[in-house]
Amino acid sequence: MDRPIGVIDSGLGGLTVAKELLRQLPKEEIVYVGDSKRCPYGPRPKAEVRTYTWQMINFLQTKNIKMLVIACNTAAAVVLEEVKKKLDIPVVGVIYPGASSAIKSTKKEHIAVIGTTGTIASGAYTTTLKNINSEVHVESLACPPFVPLVEQGIFDGEEAEHVVNQTLKPLADKQFDTLILGCTHYPLLTTVIKQWAGNQITLISSGEETAREVSGLLFHAGSAYTGERTPLHRFYTTGEEELFKRLADQWLEIDVGQVQTIFIDK
Amino acid sequence: MDRPIGVIDSGLGGLTVAKELLRQLPKEEIVYVGDSKRCPYGPRPKAEVRTYTWQMINFLQTKNIKMLVIACNTAAAVVLEEVKKKLDIPVVGVIYPGASSAIKSTKKEHIAVIGTTGTIASGAYTTTLKNINSEVHVESLACPPFVPLVEQGIFDGEEAEHVVNQTLKPLADKQFDTLILGCTHYPLLTTVIKQWAGNQITLISSGEETAREVSGLLFHAGSAYTGERTPLHRFYTTGEEELFKRLADQWLEIDVGQVQTIFIDK
Repeated sequence: MDRPIGVIDSGLGGLTVAKELLRQLPKEEIVYVGDSKRCPYGPRPKAEVRTYTWQMINFLQTKNIKMLVIACNTAAAVVLEEVKKKLDIPVVGVIYPGASSAIKSTKKEHIAVIGTTGTIASGAYTTTLKNINSEVHVESLACPPFVPLVEQGIFDGEEAEHVVNQTLKPLADKQFDTLILGCTHYPLLTTVIKQWAGNQITLISSGEETAREVSGLLFHAGSAYTGERTPLHRFYTTGEEELFKRLADQWLEIDVGQVQTIFIDK
Repeated sequence: MDRPIGVIDSGLGGLTVAKELLRQLPKEEIVYVGDSKRCPYGPRPKAEVRTYTWQMINFLQTKNIKMLVIACNTAAAVVLEEVKKKLDIPVVGVIYPGASSAIKSTKKEHIAVIGTTGTIASGAYTTTLKNINSEVHVESLACPPFVPLVEQGIFDGEEAEHVVNQTLKPLADKQFDTLILGCTHYPLLTTVIKQWAGNQITLISSGEETAREVSGLLFHAGSAYTGERTPLHRFYTTGEEELFKRLADQWLEIDVGQVQTIFIDK
């Protein structure tokens, strides 16, 4: 089906989901909206998150999207169910795909989740995991230094190792075998986190798993693009175009073309 | 939602999918039908496979199922699209979940698939993989000795190692990083295949991935069971009850209770 997949995020984090969509579904076209101007959503009241998220969705509905990915944990936690009910296209959040893949991966029924303070405080992953399997044991840890690190472009090296090792210390003596990277920024720290975790722990990236879920739902709905083409992706931000483009080019390792600033805050 | 998930297979192989459903979705109830009397489907004409598969589906429709899993590669290849169109519940096959997970897993865009002669000859995995990403490189190899090995209850040890090493020889010099176990029997040989493959190759079990796909679709449709209960699974065979029960108990590592023989071949 010749219609794009819409991706919304509070800013840049959702680009890790977009990157996986580009990799796993290279024929599909993406329309991305990042609300960089009002990022982060984490500390905002729910009503505000709801309004902002709907503004992005309404914008994307003018782009004839065939599926919507809410690539922001905070937004997904607040509006996913409501959006699923109101839209007549499939809607995917980032929490369930990561949670169900962790359930698949764990052999010890012992999972750890790391995320932003907001995500961890919401208990969204723990609730979702327990809803699937109430027997599963869940550790969770907020890792506030990780997002600033990534936003500075520090993905590995001595400083990254130091921050990761220090932050993850409370998990060191826990016996989990599966670790959910419950924030779309964290996959950029994969190398360092993997080094910390060793070979016995499986890392689950919500970006990878969300793209895999999108793939399954497209197939299920019979709406995958089946021809051959060079897809034309479009990127929109509510913030500064140049900054967004520089970081998007770097994260996605492609030239995203012209980024357009949009005004949806009315 | 208080309705069971239906699983059909040409015989016992689909029990590896059922096992993953029990593990990943422990609250859900399963109704399993294995057409052991007419197993295997692989060498049969398509029209026959179609008739037999519909007989199982018609039986399951009297069980008020909320989702159907076609856990047999051959049956899925023949009727999946048709069944999806005719049934008003979600229908999941075993090929797409394994293929899309392999696409997620591979970093080199180089995947190998092993399966029965029928599955490999059908090219179903290669076609599905290439439909998702035409750039991906696919090796495929039929492994006819694997099913008889498993059916004899030989899952590891010297004989299993010998058969696996001999059979997989043609793949030894290929540079793939992801190996799809494209037959529901093969996960029982995981230990030996893993030993052959080493740490650099990721094994994809279609059973694990299909259960994960079912989980996603249940969530998407809002039809997962969310209460607490000890689910009551039901197992039906067209063959001999006692033999089916003995093997099902062994494979699933639970007591499956009373297995019932059904007559659907009219």
